[in-house]
Amino acid sequence: MQSAQLIALSFQNFKDRIIALSKDEKTAYVQVFHNHGRDAGASLVHPHYQILSTPMVPPHIHAEISGAYHYYQDNSVCIYCDIMKEEALAKDRLVYEDDHFMVISAYASRSPFETWILPKRHSARYEDISEKEITHLAHTVKRVLGTLYTKLSDPPLNFYIHTMPVKKDRHTMREEGSYHWHLTVFPRLTIWAGFEYSTGIPVNPMPPEETAKFLRGD
Amino acid sequence: MQSAQLIALSFQNFKDRIIALSKDEKTAYVQVFHNHGRDAGASLVHPHYQILSTPMVPPHIHAEISGAYHYYQDNSVCIYCDIMKEEALAKDRLVYEDDHFMVISAYASRSPFETWILPKRHSARYEDISEKEITHLAHTVKRVLGTLYTKLSDPPLNFYIHTMPVKKDRHTMREEGSYHWHLTVFPRLTIWAGFEYSTGIPVNPMPPEETAKFLRGD
Repeated sequence: MQSAQLIALSFQNFKDRIIALSKDEKTAYVQVFHNHGRDAGASLVHPHYQILSTPMVPPHIHAEISGAYHYYQDNSVCIYCDIMKEEALAKDRLVYEDDHFMVISAYASRSPFETWILPKRHSARYEDISEKEITHLAHTVKRVLGTLYTKLSDPPLNFYIHTMPVKKDRHTMREEGSYHWHLTVFPRLTIWAGFEYSTGIPVNPMPPEETAKFLRGD
Repeated sequence: MQSAQLIALSFQNFKDRIIALSKDEKTAYVQVFHNHGRDAGASLVHPHYQILSTPMVPPHIHAEISGAYHYYQDNSVCIYCDIMKEEALAKDRLVYEDDHFMVISAYASRSPFETWILPKRHSARYEDISEKEITHLAHTVKRVLGTLYTKLSDPPLNFYIHTMPVKKDRHTMREEGSYHWHLTVFPRLTIWAGFEYSTGIPVNPMPPEETAKFLRGD
């Protein structure tokens, strides 16, 4: 496994590349992601990250930002900030936290061990991350991936960052207060079959309270 | 491979089960699907179909019906009827047709060899299928699956039927003229990775014109 220092360099690089790519007028969104293991679509054996820019806001990002914006309109508060408040009280889906990040088993996990890493400071854009936060994020990512590696015998997985689009259009002309960047770790322990591809409804046999407990080692 | 006669019995059974399940007031939608091969999520080795009813209209069905309805509002014609008219003229994505069904490589295929089987008679609901159409559908399905089996060395695949929800709600209270049931065959030749799961944008390296040509055996 890479050192936290090396991981931090990659996460600094994501920030630099998002800023550089956003200067291209064709860029609407920059997607950072990681594929690990053949069953998670990795085409290289050695650890690698990928960064792709898209000329439009991708459908999942658009849906997420719209949903968060509706919540913001109704409640005047960021839904991710509210989720962290609730998860800190409930504790049963909480995997780990430090001063800067919270790690939870996602409430509506689409697959067992879907894990969210959320910055505690409200921020819509990944590229606004501070140097100090990058250090903490690298330690957090190393800890989460290390735990999954050890406890689940090196599962295939993806992780990706969801952040505010760099280009504002009529769909994303939203208050920055309404959205909150985050990193999703998505282990590929179930296979999507006809039902999932047909309906868009994922089937997940494991409750997040159980996966969080397992990851915490209670 | 099953005989066309045995396949026809299954397709008659789908119709009977949709009608039976729609009598349950909790049923909003009935999903018929097939998983073949471990990488397509099959949990049994022998050929099997599955039928699930859901208490709400699934998101993909809702999106498809809404899209078709917008087209219908603008053009006063079913988009699937229009697609068949265009594909019959263009011919390059046409795989096979008889008097009752048309088989095409989908224009915006999400994976190589995504194949659509469309009834030529406009009909929103699978359960309105006639006995004669069932016979033709069974032959068509056998032909398509047989071709994929032979030419692609028994690939993992899913197929599923999209049809009008049995329960009308405010989302699906649409003109039946605007929707058209169809069967989608979805071979699992690519693996969805971080980019697909993050953005909702599938990456497909093969144009449908090439897959149709390959399946026709030109």
